[in-house]
Amino acid sequence: MLVKDWKEFLIPYEQAVEELKVKFKSIRKQYRSKSEYSPIEFVTGRVKEISSILEKAKKLDIPLNRISEEMEDIAGIRIMCQFVEDIYKVVQIIHQRDGKDLRIVYEKDYVKNKKESGYRSYHIIIKYPLQTTEGEVEILAEIQIRTLAMNFWATAEHSLNYKYKQSIPENIKERLKKSAELAFLLDQEMSAIKEEIIEAQKMFEIKSSI
Amino acid sequence: MLVKDWKEFLIPYEQAVEELKVKFKSIRKQYRSKSEYSPIEFVTGRVKEISSILEKAKKLDIPLNRISEEMEDIAGIRIMCQFVEDIYKVVQIIHQRDGKDLRIVYEKDYVKNKKESGYRSYHIIIKYPLQTTEGEVEILAEIQIRTLAMNFWATAEHSLNYKYKQSIPENIKERLKKSAELAFLLDQEMSAIKEEIIEAQKMFEIKSSI
Amino acid sequence: MLVKDWKEFLIPYEQAVEELKVKFKSIRKQYRSKSEYSPIEFVTGRVKEISSILEKAKKLDIPLNRISEEMEDIAGIRIMCQFVEDIYKVVQIIHQRDGKDLRIVYEKDYVKNKKESGYRSYHIIIKYPLQTTEGEVEILAEIQIRTLAMNFWATAEHSLNYKYKQSIPENIKERLKKSAELAFLLDQEMSAIKEEIIEAQKMFEIKSSI
Amino acid sequence: MLVKDWKEFLIPYEQAVEELKVKFKSIRKQYRSKSEYSPIEFVTGRVKEISSILEKAKKLDIPLNRISEEMEDIAGIRIMCQFVEDIYKVVQIIHQRDGKDLRIVYEKDYVKNKKESGYRSYHIIIKYPLQTTEGEVEILAEIQIRTLAMNFWATAEHSLNYKYKQSIPENIKERLKKSAELAFLLDQEMSAIKEEIIEAQKMFEIKSSI
Repeated sequence: MLVKDWKEFLIPYEQAVEELKVKFKSIRKQYRSKSEYSPIEFVTGRVKEISSILEKAKKLDIPLNRISEEMEDIAGIRIMCQFVEDIYKVVQIIHQRDGKDLRIVYEKDYVKNKKESGYRSYHIIIKYPLQTTEGEVEILAEIQIRTLAMNFWATAEHSLNYKYKQSIPENIKERLKKSAELAFLLDQEMSAIKEEIIEAQKMFEIKSSI
Repeated sequence: MLVKDWKEFLIPYEQAVEELKVKFKSIRKQYRSKSEYSPIEFVTGRVKEISSILEKAKKLDIPLNRISEEMEDIAGIRIMCQFVEDIYKVVQIIHQRDGKDLRIVYEKDYVKNKKESGYRSYHIIIKYPLQTTEGEVEILAEIQIRTLAMNFWATAEHSLNYKYKQSIPENIKERLKKSAELAFLLDQEMSAIKEEIIEAQKMFEIKSSI
Repeated sequence: MLVKDWKEFLIPYEQAVEELKVKFKSIRKQYRSKSEYSPIEFVTGRVKEISSILEKAKKLDIPLNRISEEMEDIAGIRIMCQFVEDIYKVVQIIHQRDGKDLRIVYEKDYVKNKKESGYRSYHIIIKYPLQTTEGEVEILAEIQIRTLAMNFWATAEHSLNYKYKQSIPENIKERLKKSAELAFLLDQEMSAIKEEIIEAQKMFEIKSSI
Repeated sequence: MLVKDWKEFLIPYEQAVEELKVKFKSIRKQYRSKSEYSPIEFVTGRVKEISSILEKAKKLDIPLNRISEEMEDIAGIRIMCQFVEDIYKVVQIIHQRDGKDLRIVYEKDYVKNKKESGYRSYHIIIKYPLQTTEGEVEILAEIQIRTLAMNFWATAEHSLNYKYKQSIPENIKERLKKSAELAFLLDQEMSAIKEEIIEAQKMFEIKSSI
């Protein structure tokens, strides 16, 4: 494909990312407008770079005329949460929309079952119906849901991999894995503190009411 | 209603305006990305001011618990076109989406049948399904489609009405009507020139091929 | 230049357009927040397409290593007003900033002295100081100030010229010029109505106070 | 002050935040466009809520007519980095702009000298010259520069403090402090890994060239 054709191919993906970003950001706004706690801290989105699409197609042996059916993360949405529990609230919100403005294809819970590398996130692959100048099309998109700590680790790992991928020796991979455990401990500790505070408040209220 | 309650009431309208703006703007992008002429020049949107909602509810005798069913322009989208013909292309694009991501309630063609005041625009009232934290809701919205000349006139008329509404004498209303005719002539003249150029090009091509 | 080099060359222009758009849009917000009439109706901005830069450089005989000094409209800002009088208020606002966050190079008043084609607008060429990762640079930018009617005509003329430029015969150019006069009459008529209403209001107030 | 007056008071702060966000985001774009590593990962900004301004004014005993001179964080910009080293690169970039489009008032390095609570971030207080409809004004603004891990911890601490502030017992504060140490270890570990990889690459290149 020529650059011009790629640009045209990517147009519906850009549109899908735009619409999904607006939709998930509005969930946060709705909570905030009612002064309620929002399980969504912030939302980002991106269309995969042409070079990365080509690289991935080659690696996974996907013929170019099949990428819109087989490559699931050309359109990508990332939802960041503060606490691990919030991830599952967001998952539930997306489940409730299944069959309405999006359709869930499958899910992978890398939060409970972390990857070998240490990577943690909840992935939902969806089909998103899109109105274009040539009628309705369905776009594959990947939604990644993670805490800020998971995001910190994943972003750093990605940029290290990106810069040094040819020469990361095993012992460094091991260190990365350990830092992932640190990020995990951090999430756990924060959740625990949250629980403990709630507990302390209940005790306080019971005492007060005696 | 308290200001706080109004804010909460308006949240889904704001979300609907955001989503519809993204959707109609992307039509323009799609045409441009294929180097084709876009019938849409630009898109704006707004949620009606609380003060204007109250004023209109009073004028039309709509009880406050009925405004979400009876006031059609709390969420408003405006689509600007270059030529009158483009308006009907946009209308056709919206018709094709009827029953997909929106539902047409009714239409008013103030382009062919201008208002007494001189006002011209094509209005489509839609219901727009919205996913909220409390499930799906359907939002009434008004889409106005007009040329830049119609928009120029309507904007100026609106701001004159707004500033001086108590004291516009009949003779000035008459002048406003005449200026609407000027705007109409301008649209007609531009369309005619467009036609003539296309005709001239055909003549030129016929000559060239002899 | 390679596409990659062009992209890098255009980066500061994109940044300048972004900053100037934010700055001029905020003028409108300031007026609105005080419930005052804003002389600015809306603001757009764009960086010139590479193909258009090359075309213009060729036409004006500008060597490529001189375009940042000699091509004044690579960064372009357009400010739309409702009434002709507003144009001069905006000009005055820009004059007050001269030597502060921008520097005026020269001005052309195509409102009072319209172009042969019928084109009307007020142009201000500025130098805008920009902080980059490589220190401060000064960017040439063109600010066009016009009414919505001027903008309607200029946009239509531009798109007709663009599509049919090879074959516009003299008689059609003549018609375009006449339509420009219509747009001019429309502006004049709207200004006149505005004046008359103000006059009528004064009469009304005098009568009331007798 | 009435709500209306507050809104007017906050207008220049909103403008300053908008302009500063555009400016710092463009630094990232500049690096990316040259395919260079950007020390800035992302940028956010906000104007302090009226209720928070009032609360802080009361706590610090600032009279309301002095808040624009004495409250430094009404306009706030937050710059997120991937690695601790990047924070100091961003600080250097801001130093280079001192006296140009902003003026540094003072700085606090809570990265090297963390707060009692465990909080880490680099703060720069600036004065930012702003062109308004009423001439130039200088706005105080606070720039916070931190890693994603620092941001994760600070965000969580903030929301815990916000929700439970009346009843956080000492032992829970202690746990929060420990989790801050975890976040610190995470940053250190990531930096160390980065260094080790660079070292490994050098070794690899030396071997290759033998």
